[in-house]
Amino acid sequence: MSARPTRILTGITTSGTPHLGNYAGAIRPALVSAQSADVENFYFLADYHALVKCGDPARVQRSTLEIAATWLACGLDPAKVWFYRQSDIPEIPELMWFLTCVAGKGLLNRAHAYKAAVDKNRAEGEDDDAGITGGLYMYPVLMAADILIFNADKVPVGRDQIQHIEMARDFGQRFNHLYGEHFVLPEVVIEESVATLPGLDGRKMSKSYDNTIPLFAPPAELKKLIMGIVTDSRMPGEAKDTSDSALFQLYQAFSTPEETAAMREAFAQGIGWGDAKQQLFEQIDRQVAPMREKYEALIAKPDAIEAILRDGAARLRARYATPALAELRRAVGLRDLSVVAAQAVPERRHKRALPTFKQYREADGKFYFKLMQGDRELLVSLGFDSPREAGQQIAVMKTGEAGSAYVLSPGVGAEDVAAALAAFRDDAQD
Amino acid sequence: MSARPTRILTGITTSGTPHLGNYAGAIRPALVSAQSADVENFYFLADYHALVKCGDPARVQRSTLEIAATWLACGLDPAKVWFYRQSDIPEIPELMWFLTCVAGKGLLNRAHAYKAAVDKNRAEGEDDDAGITGGLYMYPVLMAADILIFNADKVPVGRDQIQHIEMARDFGQRFNHLYGEHFVLPEVVIEESVATLPGLDGRKMSKSYDNTIPLFAPPAELKKLIMGIVTDSRMPGEAKDTSDSALFQLYQAFSTPEETAAMREAFAQGIGWGDAKQQLFEQIDRQVAPMREKYEALIAKPDAIEAILRDGAARLRARYATPALAELRRAVGLRDLSVVAAQAVPERRHKRALPTFKQYREADGKFYFKLMQGDRELLVSLGFDSPREAGQQIAVMKTGEAGSAYVLSPGVGAEDVAAALAAFRDDAQD
Repeated sequence: MSARPTRILTGITTSGTPHLGNYAGAIRPALVSAQSADVENFYFLADYHALVKCGDPARVQRSTLEIAATWLACGLDPAKVWFYRQSDIPEIPELMWFLTCVAGKGLLNRAHAYKAAVDKNRAEGEDDDAGITGGLYMYPVLMAADILIFNADKVPVGRDQIQHIEMARDFGQRFNHLYGEHFVLPEVVIEESVATLPGLDGRKMSKSYDNTIPLFAPPAELKKLIMGIVTDSRMPGEAKDTSDSALFQLYQAFSTPEETAAMREAFAQGIGWGDAKQQLFEQIDRQVAPMREKYEALIAKPDAIEAILRDGAARLRARYATPALAELRRAVGLRDLSVVAAQAVPERRHKRALPTFKQYREADGKFYFKLMQGDRELLVSLGFDSPREAGQQIAVMKTGEAGSAYVLSPGVGAEDVAAALAAFRDDAQD
Repeated sequence: MSARPTRILTGITTSGTPHLGNYAGAIRPALVSAQSADVENFYFLADYHALVKCGDPARVQRSTLEIAATWLACGLDPAKVWFYRQSDIPEIPELMWFLTCVAGKGLLNRAHAYKAAVDKNRAEGEDDDAGITGGLYMYPVLMAADILIFNADKVPVGRDQIQHIEMARDFGQRFNHLYGEHFVLPEVVIEESVATLPGLDGRKMSKSYDNTIPLFAPPAELKKLIMGIVTDSRMPGEAKDTSDSALFQLYQAFSTPEETAAMREAFAQGIGWGDAKQQLFEQIDRQVAPMREKYEALIAKPDAIEAILRDGAARLRARYATPALAELRRAVGLRDLSVVAAQAVPERRHKRALPTFKQYREADGKFYFKLMQGDRELLVSLGFDSPREAGQQIAVMKTGEAGSAYVLSPGVGAEDVAAALAAFRDDAQD
């Protein structure tokens, strides 16, 4: 607990069908990272984000199912990582409001997506904000809430998302400045080799450009799409340029360095575009086929996927989101009226004296707390890296949960601790 | 149920100590309205709103306690009206995000409070948005969520708030247009006679102007403050003008027409300012004193107030907020993956056939539904004024709650209905 694993968070917006770009750019690297020791992974289906371009509820539902099935088919193990649907965590929109209240409007004005929409309006002679919704304008704050609610350390994203992570850091920092150190400031992780997979037309593969290749297209459709990738007009026998070839980049994304080198050589030797596309199709299909089979089995059982997502969210809320939000609510002043107010109201008497938590720092630089019942010490915590982490543990224990991460003091039994903590629970229910 | 009572919603932001302006302008008229038949009243402590001008958590907590105790001391009966704390309803920030996604940014730009902040920045040679937070910019959307989550029909407000109600109507209308008729569009109610109580300096009494008279100030403080009300310099014996006198307006707000007429005559006869202030003090103190006594008893028991607020919110969520949000989530596409997807996945088999709801309109113009198990009719609903209301009742029943507002069909027992509805609950838990 004192040296907690690094938390890595990845979300995919549930507004489309997963494509090769999602797979190579987000899903595959995320699942590789899940293998690392000392890493705690958070994968989520960003369905609140899907409402920004609102209008097709059935598409949101279908996309959520497809993306969930895709993660699972690609090997995500929901017992080993946190796998959840954003809208199953009501703490996220609540935190979004707290962050909205500290977010500088000047910073929001500079968000790329919003600025691009304004530029488009200007080019068309419209008012700056014509047709722009609060959703487009505010979604960087929602994204900050996604990250900060779990104190994620690292967020792997494409280059176009770097600004959003910087904004999350800014909002987290402002909150910390106003209300105390509650948030870890997330770091962006750019995976250079996978950040930009080209689509059918050579631009970045993206559903906004309508140039995607669905990850689990049936083989015939996959082949047809690959055959449609834009190339130049060089004939078989003519040497071909790899540096600007979408086809080559796609091949590279699904190949070993050796295979890539062989394809580079084939380009130099004048391989025909048709042959090259056939090789690309075979290369991708070989890797995708076993996952496609799993995907089809999974998508036929939406109730099983629903159950997996609900279970993940329930465990994640209990473990992190609910205690974190309880602490944040206390920080901003949304508090049990009877708790601090008691100090200002001398005539109030507790039916039973509450135990107290005492926080302190040891010579080892770590942060500890004790639980005291009057003058009697009941337990001493393990060392935490920050007062915030110690405070979160205290918040959990104040809900009546004994939890762990402490050592009972001499002569104290677990039942003494349980009785002391029960006093907090009873008090909260008064 | 078919002609539901008019819903009236009133909130007070928990950022200050209740003053005479809050009492005469909001609390007193709201409590009078609570006496009306065919009215369902919603009174809430707007503590999320208090975070807009963030920075003093202890103040938010204290203010929440003071405002709750004030409502109760002034005669609010939490058994007869909905009395709750905004932050105990997590459905509100979630709905706020849905509304954010449909809110036009152009409309948000025109909000008075935001425009006033921009004008101030311009006058000071700053950037337009210098020091402005997302909280100031977005709070009209939060306010819309406060109103629309309960489909409030009427919102009594001061003139400065009319625009916010218009914005709530606009967001509700846009949502209805995109996702179907879910929201009643609220109407503003302006009580002309009480809208503007002057403060110590003659401007509107408001904590922003630091010119307030606390409602429950001890008598000596109340008297001192009243003695400090700004007047002109006319001497005793000189006739005095009532039309521009803060003192006279305050007297009027706490007096019968007869008392007011007598004071008007005293002004004309040249009453001295000191005497007039003494009369005003006595007039207010006579009315406030019994409530002040109750207030002091209440504020000494913050745990009792906490319990009242929690109880109110828990009942209100169960009755309205949770079923309403479930229906709204379904509307925007945040759905149980197994439910509609089943149509697209022919190989899925339900373990047990679900009963079905059939909606229809009768010759009386009202909207009804039946619950069918296969070909067997189990019940027929009472008539609803809109398909939306019928749909909400269906949504509640699909959670497994039998509820009321229906007639069992011949030969059907309550246990048949319970068993049929249990199938929905089991299905949702798959």
